[in-house]
Amino acid sequence: MTLITTDFEQPTTDDYPTRKGTEPALLYRRDPAVWGTAADGPMSQEELDSFDTKGYYQAEALVTAEELAIYRAELDRLAGDEAIKRDERTIVERSSDEVRSIFEVHKISEVFAKLVRDPRVVGRARQILGSDVYVHQSRVNYKPGFGGGDFYWHSDFETWHAEDGMPRPRAVSLSLALTDNHPYNGCLMIMPGSHKTYVSCVGETPEGHYRDSLKKQEIGTPDPSSLTILADKHGIDMITGPAGTGLFFDCNCMHGSSGNISPYPRSNVFIVFNSVDNTCGEPFAAPSPRPTFVGARDFTPVI
Amino acid sequence: MTLITTDFEQPTTDDYPTRKGTEPALLYRRDPAVWGTAADGPMSQEELDSFDTKGYYQAEALVTAEELAIYRAELDRLAGDEAIKRDERTIVERSSDEVRSIFEVHKISEVFAKLVRDPRVVGRARQILGSDVYVHQSRVNYKPGFGGGDFYWHSDFETWHAEDGMPRPRAVSLSLALTDNHPYNGCLMIMPGSHKTYVSCVGETPEGHYRDSLKKQEIGTPDPSSLTILADKHGIDMITGPAGTGLFFDCNCMHGSSGNISPYPRSNVFIVFNSVDNTCGEPFAAPSPRPTFVGARDFTPVI
Repeated sequence: MTLITTDFEQPTTDDYPTRKGTEPALLYRRDPAVWGTAADGPMSQEELDSFDTKGYYQAEALVTAEELAIYRAELDRLAGDEAIKRDERTIVERSSDEVRSIFEVHKISEVFAKLVRDPRVVGRARQILGSDVYVHQSRVNYKPGFGGGDFYWHSDFETWHAEDGMPRPRAVSLSLALTDNHPYNGCLMIMPGSHKTYVSCVGETPEGHYRDSLKKQEIGTPDPSSLTILADKHGIDMITGPAGTGLFFDCNCMHGSSGNISPYPRSNVFIVFNSVDNTCGEPFAAPSPRPTFVGARDFTPVI
Repeated sequence: MTLITTDFEQPTTDDYPTRKGTEPALLYRRDPAVWGTAADGPMSQEELDSFDTKGYYQAEALVTAEELAIYRAELDRLAGDEAIKRDERTIVERSSDEVRSIFEVHKISEVFAKLVRDPRVVGRARQILGSDVYVHQSRVNYKPGFGGGDFYWHSDFETWHAEDGMPRPRAVSLSLALTDNHPYNGCLMIMPGSHKTYVSCVGETPEGHYRDSLKKQEIGTPDPSSLTILADKHGIDMITGPAGTGLFFDCNCMHGSSGNISPYPRSNVFIVFNSVDNTCGEPFAAPSPRPTFVGARDFTPVI
C-alpha cells in the first residue's frame, strides 16, 4: 500500500524540504494523518476523524490510578539513580542541573517497556498509522515547577525528517500525563489543524546539533510569519487534563509549551511510534543521523 | 481614621518584616483590603466583597474601543521614539533589546495622564482605598510575543515596603489590557485570596538593586515552600479577557506570569494608586529608596 521507498536510499525529490533555502515556506502536507479505520480498533471513527482534523486526540484515563502510581514511583527511582543521571541519555536543566528528560526510557526501564507494548497504547498507534509500528524515540520528561523552561514552537517531524531521515509524516506520539496538566503549569499548546501544513525552516544543521537542541531548540525553528499565519488560522489549544490522560498527536503538529513557574511539576512519558513502512534513512538536512537513543535505527516492530 | 504615622519616621515595630531574617515566614495581613463602601461608588458592594475575598476585580470594557485605539497608537508612538528608548525610565528585553516597559508613563504621555485622572479609573482606586490617592508608579508593558520573558511569583507590596518604604498594604494596581489576554500569551496569574497572607522573604537588598529587579526579580522572591502552601490553599487563577478589561488588584496579591511564546503580544498600562494616608518613608529593607520614576516621592493626590 505504501508509495514510498523505505530503504536507505532517498527519493530524488523531497516533498518536505527544510533547512536548505534562505526563505521559509508553508507547504501542503502530501500524506494522510490517519491511515487506519475504526474497524481496526480501539478508536472510534469519530475519534479518528477528530484526530485527522485537529492532529491530536486525548484519551481520558488511558491508564488506571494504580498504574499511575507505579509510573510515578518509577519516575522518582530513575531521577534518583546517579548512574542514570550521568548517562548520555539523560538531559539536565540548564539552570538547576535537575533531570529534565531521560531518553530511551523503554530500554532503561522495564516498567515503561511494558507500557509501550500495552494494547491501549500501541494499539492506537497502529490504528492511526495503519501498519505495524516501532519506537522511534521514548523519554520521560520531568518539567519541574518553580521555573521549568519553555519549549518554543516546532514540528517534531521537521526535526526527524531533517536530522533523523524520517521520510514522511507517518509517525504519532503519545504523551501520557503523570501529573495533572493545567493552563498554569506549562501544559502543551497545539495549533489544531496545523499538522496539515509543513513549515520549511531556514538555516543549516551543524554537526552534533542534537545535544543543544534537546535543551533548547534553535535550528529548525519556524519563522515568526509562518507561526502567525498558523496561529491566526488555527488558534492555540491548551492541552489540559488530569494525570492518566493520554495525548496522541501527529508528528507534524505545530506545538510548544510555556515555562512553568507554578509549584506543580508537569511530568509525562513520551513515546514516538513510527510506521514500519516509514523507517528512517539518511538525514534530509544534517551531516549525520542523531544518536540512536534520540532517533532509533532499530526498526523492529513492537509486538 | 488612620492609625499609622505617615511622615518619614517609621513606627518602631514593623508588621511586615522582610529581607531581614534567614528563614521565610507567612504572616497574617494586619490591614483591610477594602476601605470604602458601595455608597462611595462606582463599584457595587458585591464587587467590593469579591475584591476583598479574591484580592482582585475585573472591570469588563473599562474603556471604549475608540479609547483603546488611542492607547494602542500611543503605545506604538512611545516604542518608536528613540529618545524615550534611551531614557532611564525605559526597560528593554534582556534578549532582544526590544522595549519591555516604560515607567512614569503618566508623566511622559498626556494620553496616559488623562487615563489616570479618569473617574472610571481613579474613582475605583479611591473607593477601594477609602481615601484620596496618588500615583506610586505607572508604566506601559509591551510583553512581546515569540518569547517574551516570564515574571516569577511576587507580592508588589513586599517590594514597595522593603525598597520604597511603603508602610502598609493600602495600595491598588490597575492593569488595563491593551491586547486580548489568553491563557497562552503570558496572562497574569493570581493566587486568589493570597493577598491576606504576607510572605516575609529572606536575603538582603543590595544597593542599586532596582534596575536588575525590573528585568527579573531575584531578591524579595518568595521561597518554594511558601508558594506551595499558598497555591495549594488558594489555587491559581488565569486572568484572561479581551482588550479593554481593567484588572484592579491588591498590592499584596501573590502573582506572576509565564513567558509568551505565542505570536500575540500582551500589552497593558499599569497604574499603582497608593492612599495619601500611606505615603512612603524610608525603605524598610534597603539602603536607599529606589528612583522616583519607580516609586514616587511626590504624594500630590490625583484630582
